[in-house]
Amino acid sequence: MPQPANPEPAPDFDSMLSRKFGKEVANYFSGSPLNRVGFLRSDHKFLSEALRHPSTQFLLCNELQPLIHSSKPDRLGFVKHEVVQPVIGDDPYAATEQDMLGQYNSTSYVPQMIFLGIDEKAKEGVSYQNKKNTYKGAPYFAVDVTPRASVKEECEKLIQGLDAKGLGFAKGRVMDIEAHDAAIYAEARQLLDWNARNPFCAQCGQPTLSVNGGFKRTCPPKDLARSAKQASSGISNAISTTPETPADESERPPCATRKGVSNVSFPRTDPTVIMAVVNHAGDRILLGRQKRWPPYWYSTLAGFAEPAESIEEAVRREVYEEAGIYVGRVVIHSTQPWPYPANLMIGAVGQAIPEGETIDLGNDPELDDAKWFDFDEVRHALRVGTSGLGEDAGPEYKEGGLRLPPSTAIANQLMVSVVNGFVSAQPKM
Amino acid sequence: MPQPANPEPAPDFDSMLSRKFGKEVANYFSGSPLNRVGFLRSDHKFLSEALRHPSTQFLLCNELQPLIHSSKPDRLGFVKHEVVQPVIGDDPYAATEQDMLGQYNSTSYVPQMIFLGIDEKAKEGVSYQNKKNTYKGAPYFAVDVTPRASVKEECEKLIQGLDAKGLGFAKGRVMDIEAHDAAIYAEARQLLDWNARNPFCAQCGQPTLSVNGGFKRTCPPKDLARSAKQASSGISNAISTTPETPADESERPPCATRKGVSNVSFPRTDPTVIMAVVNHAGDRILLGRQKRWPPYWYSTLAGFAEPAESIEEAVRREVYEEAGIYVGRVVIHSTQPWPYPANLMIGAVGQAIPEGETIDLGNDPELDDAKWFDFDEVRHALRVGTSGLGEDAGPEYKEGGLRLPPSTAIANQLMVSVVNGFVSAQPKM
Repeated sequence: MPQPANPEPAPDFDSMLSRKFGKEVANYFSGSPLNRVGFLRSDHKFLSEALRHPSTQFLLCNELQPLIHSSKPDRLGFVKHEVVQPVIGDDPYAATEQDMLGQYNSTSYVPQMIFLGIDEKAKEGVSYQNKKNTYKGAPYFAVDVTPRASVKEECEKLIQGLDAKGLGFAKGRVMDIEAHDAAIYAEARQLLDWNARNPFCAQCGQPTLSVNGGFKRTCPPKDLARSAKQASSGISNAISTTPETPADESERPPCATRKGVSNVSFPRTDPTVIMAVVNHAGDRILLGRQKRWPPYWYSTLAGFAEPAESIEEAVRREVYEEAGIYVGRVVIHSTQPWPYPANLMIGAVGQAIPEGETIDLGNDPELDDAKWFDFDEVRHALRVGTSGLGEDAGPEYKEGGLRLPPSTAIANQLMVSVVNGFVSAQPKM
Repeated sequence: MPQPANPEPAPDFDSMLSRKFGKEVANYFSGSPLNRVGFLRSDHKFLSEALRHPSTQFLLCNELQPLIHSSKPDRLGFVKHEVVQPVIGDDPYAATEQDMLGQYNSTSYVPQMIFLGIDEKAKEGVSYQNKKNTYKGAPYFAVDVTPRASVKEECEKLIQGLDAKGLGFAKGRVMDIEAHDAAIYAEARQLLDWNARNPFCAQCGQPTLSVNGGFKRTCPPKDLARSAKQASSGISNAISTTPETPADESERPPCATRKGVSNVSFPRTDPTVIMAVVNHAGDRILLGRQKRWPPYWYSTLAGFAEPAESIEEAVRREVYEEAGIYVGRVVIHSTQPWPYPANLMIGAVGQAIPEGETIDLGNDPELDDAKWFDFDEVRHALRVGTSGLGEDAGPEYKEGGLRLPPSTAIANQLMVSVVNGFVSAQPKM
């Protein structure tokens, strides 16, 4: 946050904002307390200072699972620089991005790090001047400490030491940690996963380098591993040399991503539609279930948006494909980041046209069942029948009754809005 | 569309829907007249029939530019199967997907094709029975006829013949064709471009194969080019053979995308936020300009959504980064597919908090300028000062007045909504 010109205490924009969001539904995994200050990601002087500041918090992940407190499993466990230093080295940001590109060697393993942002409300923090503005806050990083390659032993040692600190890696899908922690973890997980899924350039097939605090992968023009390999094999003349081979043997074949901007260099987020569809009379809601779900469990329909369609079109297409229903009006309700692995859930409420309310599962056989449910039944189930997928329903639930996802799922929020009159509120649509 | 069980004429769902969309703003590039019937994309029996049906329309693209009518440049020019047959061959869908995988040879060039969907309103069309449902309509395909590799000469010959038919490839960014054609082209362009940008597997670096009517790239477990290369070079024992080398030399190293579902196999769409921000009093709108734009030209702020943030958060972050403004309430307005190259524009209206209205361009220096504009000035400019970026403003425009994007841009639609009272309509927020 920019420093105010006068010496008065900075206005607390964050708490002002929280009072001014209006009717907005903020879904689980959103609401991060961090300012990402993304414009500082390529500034290694900043990253280097941030990394080694005493206020800095490191979120360690092992196979994408975050560290949590053994005694408080709803809170992430952060560690300090000295704990992670043996794995990441003294200062992974000592060289500039430009120098890192020039020194690129595809055979070196570098543990993935993500610069997540700064917590401007922390009592202590780094203070960094960038041109006229000063940014203050406790920096947050994520580090992949999965034991592998050249850091295998250091990671194993680090992990063994965590137990004594009362910390351990979460098991299974993380869906029940405190909301602010969940948003921080979502950012860490999605970025670590994207880097792990994209070690090669989709444009040219060559290995890529993580830059920009983990928010970009770039296709370096040189790779020191090439010259080393050719020198040691002694076969460069026999096989690899063609008339086009450049004099510098570390130089790699050309790649289109090096000219201009290409989206394959940037993290990927897949827009997904999820929709509460009501019938034309406005008293029933369409829910579907997948085969692998527990008995009596239903939820709203959902699916990936396709290239070159609006969200409104994607809602109509998915509902037609999965349930044969024709949807007229569509209104976007709220959105939810979903880091398994990289979705943006765009929640909508749609209304079927009177002639298109007959369920037909025969187009895309994705659902095990789809049904219209009376608002009253859904209202009851929202009260007694919600839980995480692997969990038991509450004590009031009676076997055979409708079961629904918990309030951390946007599906639940959509159903709550609909049974509370979202559709009859005419101006909303 | 499923065939009705009774012999009555099928209800015209499409025109019913168009009367029932309510207040929805349908932006340019949305509103496709095609049913994508995506669940039939892996059915090569269907694709093969669709490809060769007399009703089928082929949209040819050369370096992603579509064919248009020379005398009617606002309409796409489609061709028939016999025109494109010399380039694509008799039946590129003769083999099943499974067989194509087994016969994969990374050295063969296959012109990219996309199955776009069927036009169910066409007078003539294919009729295809899939289990209980029958799908009827004129099929649409896109074909990349850029002259290259093994089909260079056939493509050149084909292109030469188009001139005589009064057809030619559009020049520059296609933004002024008829709306239905624009939606069809958006689908074709985005899918052709995605395939062209992703010939290699980002997970393992090996070349991939287009399947699913152009909507998926898969990493085949074998490549006939490998055994051919090793046989001809005579060096397989010296270099490529390791103790792990499989007996079948066409077998490729393992890839994680072959187990389960991986999003790197599917087309990518980048969610983007674009927002009309109004001041707290509700009488001014925040607009910004980029250096490369013509003088006096402004538009709404926009930027990519980042991983693990809600759209509402992305709006607040972008406006803070680019203009230093703190936004409170955010309401999503409408969405627009944007095929340059793969964006989904999510349009929102936001309102600044009273203490956060001071413009500061010093965080992320992306904009050349940002300013608050009175609604009256914007209203006037929407009447006299809109045009495409490369075009002249209208005859009523006076030099020095505000210039704005045309109605085909969602930015324009957002401004229209705001100056027409979107914010003061309390229930909307």
